Amino acid sequence: MSRFLSPEARRLDPYTPGEQPRDQKYVKLNTNESPFPPSPKVLEALSRAEAEKLCLYSDPTCTLLNDAIARRYGLEPENVISGNGSDEVLAFAFRAFCGEGRGAAFADITYGFYEAQAALFGLEARRVPLREDFSLNVEDYMDFPGTVVIANPNAPTGMTVSVSHIRRLLERNPNRVVLVDEAYVDFGAESCVPLIREYGHLLVTQTMSKSRSLAGGRIGFALGSQELIADLNRVKYSFNPYNVNRLSLLAGAAAIEDEDYFQSCCRTVRDNRAWTVEALEARGFTVLSSSANFIFARSNRLSGEELYRRWKENGILVRWFGQDRIRDFVRITIGSREQMAALVETLDRLLENDG
Amino acid sequence: MSRFLSPEARRLDPYTPGEQPRDQKYVKLNTNESPFPPSPKVLEALSRAEAEKLCLYSDPTCTLLNDAIARRYGLEPENVISGNGSDEVLAFAFRAFCGEGRGAAFADITYGFYEAQAALFGLEARRVPLREDFSLNVEDYMDFPGTVVIANPNAPTGMTVSVSHIRRLLERNPNRVVLVDEAYVDFGAESCVPLIREYGHLLVTQTMSKSRSLAGGRIGFALGSQELIADLNRVKYSFNPYNVNRLSLLAGAAAIEDEDYFQSCCRTVRDNRAWTVEALEARGFTVLSSSANFIFARSNRLSGEELYRRWKENGILVRWFGQDRIRDFVRITIGSREQMAALVETLDRLLENDG
Repeated sequence: MSRFLSPEARRLDPYTPGEQPRDQKYVKLNTNESPFPPSPKVLEALSRAEAEKLCLYSDPTCTLLNDAIARRYGLEPENVISGNGSDEVLAFAFRAFCGEGRGAAFADITYGFYEAQAALFGLEARRVPLREDFSLNVEDYMDFPGTVVIANPNAPTGMTVSVSHIRRLLERNPNRVVLVDEAYVDFGAESCVPLIREYGHLLVTQTMSKSRSLAGGRIGFALGSQELIADLNRVKYSFNPYNVNRLSLLAGAAAIEDEDYFQSCCRTVRDNRAWTVEALEARGFTVLSSSANFIFARSNRLSGEELYRRWKENGILVRWFGQDRIRDFVRITIGSREQMAALVETLDRLLENDG
Repeated sequence: MSRFLSPEARRLDPYTPGEQPRDQKYVKLNTNESPFPPSPKVLEALSRAEAEKLCLYSDPTCTLLNDAIARRYGLEPENVISGNGSDEVLAFAFRAFCGEGRGAAFADITYGFYEAQAALFGLEARRVPLREDFSLNVEDYMDFPGTVVIANPNAPTGMTVSVSHIRRLLERNPNRVVLVDEAYVDFGAESCVPLIREYGHLLVTQTMSKSRSLAGGRIGFALGSQELIADLNRVKYSFNPYNVNRLSLLAGAAAIEDEDYFQSCCRTVRDNRAWTVEALEARGFTVLSSSANFIFARSNRLSGEELYRRWKENGILVRWFGQDRIRDFVRITIGSREQMAALVETLDRLLENDG
């Protein structure tokens, strides 16, 4: 920290992203990326002719992309805002709807970034403990006087809250925004998007980083009532009007239009998840019920830290958080069948050496 | 505005970007883009093989890009942070170095975005009037207790402050960050980058949107002491760790390495600027002395608003701001010789009809 850092910035709580080794020697199951390349339609859209136009600014209204997203979800373009990853859209929401005396509430075990972003805007962050079994009780959020943020499915547990419970929260909290972060929804959870027409205070965020194989393209979006989206645009135009670059606008629109490819990738991930869960359970693991493209698992023989370390020594990267309630667990991204087989084979060797 | 908008967000002052018509029927001289495509090396770097890797996150440390930038400017990678356009890097700086009782000071006539970003973080913004002739007097900033932001060359005037004046400001303000926004420096102004080794409180921002023909790639960067850059990273990791996408990392690194192409583009813009200034002056215009890829000009016959409107009716987009001190002026981006010839020919027709 320099001596120029403001007191406000001293209070920041920066997020630590998962390891991103620049060499490619690891089987990378640590940051919930897709094991599949983007849709062939995305590759086509990123033509040389389009690259030549990079001298021109991108469309600040993101019309091509927002229109495609709106069509896909049966909404109007005015119900959509796109961002440089869903992290950016989440930050817009924190700035738009929170402030002094209007903090944000989220689970004690959830995406670590909510906390970092709350600090960015000097907000009170209330961490609401999940139940002992890591399930979320919406009753705990009923009287919170600020924005409620629910990751559904949750990270890093992969567990879901039912849409009927979220509906109850919306009914009982008509005067506060409820933000449902559906980064992982496409891998088997029920989406709240159909509730958007009913509840003007529901904001849903999604990302193309996981189910659309575009983590490196940085494309996220929020869906909500026209009024909420207008509020988010107010923040966007105070922060970075040209927030999505030209090629990502094209890539995102092409990805969202290739429904078949998307469905097929999601199906394969679900199949590989079931295969991996079965394999790990057969080896003495407890695996939380996951609706995401990752699983959260602990071994009856090796600690979370040991698992992380020894898999890594053997060329396999998973993520270990080391926080109190979850230090026994590792989070394992669901990759291709070959990657999952490598994970299990390596595990067998570790357990053998350990036995 | 929805009823959910926080009081903090109500006070925002969103920026209005220049028109970005999605059809391409205009000669577009309104948002200071380059008339040239990106370097051929950029087009090569954006290969299909790289597009296939978009399923993986981008490198959050932006090492490839920051290394290339550091080499180009004779600095270390620790002196560089890259962002999703320089707008993002500017926002990081406002959050890092400003706060309560530590506002930001900038000229009354300058890039409108400083004001929007100051509001984003609830900062006091002091607007310091330029002299009558639009030159900036550094003496006016000597005792300001916060961050001083100087666009050099300034937008929309194109006028410069000498590096010796900025050095005086740095000497007299050792306890506050001085931010020099060099978005347009490559078109003929003297850069403050060589002062970075001497002054730990100097931060310089630049962009690849203008001189590197990558407006649509959204790549900006800041250069400064290791300590200041670490502070900016603290904000970045609280906001959006993966802030530059994979393809922009590659495009930016390739662009910065093609020095010949860069020099040739800048030279052509300077030549076309001289040509345009001469043509406009011959037609009764007053043109401020510009070191940028745009000129700020007023006619002795048509108002700024009329010029803007009538050029637009004839297929030529320039920018008119309509603020008090500058409503007689239009800002004209310097494009290709053909574009500038079209501007002048159209002007001749307008003046003829008007005469």
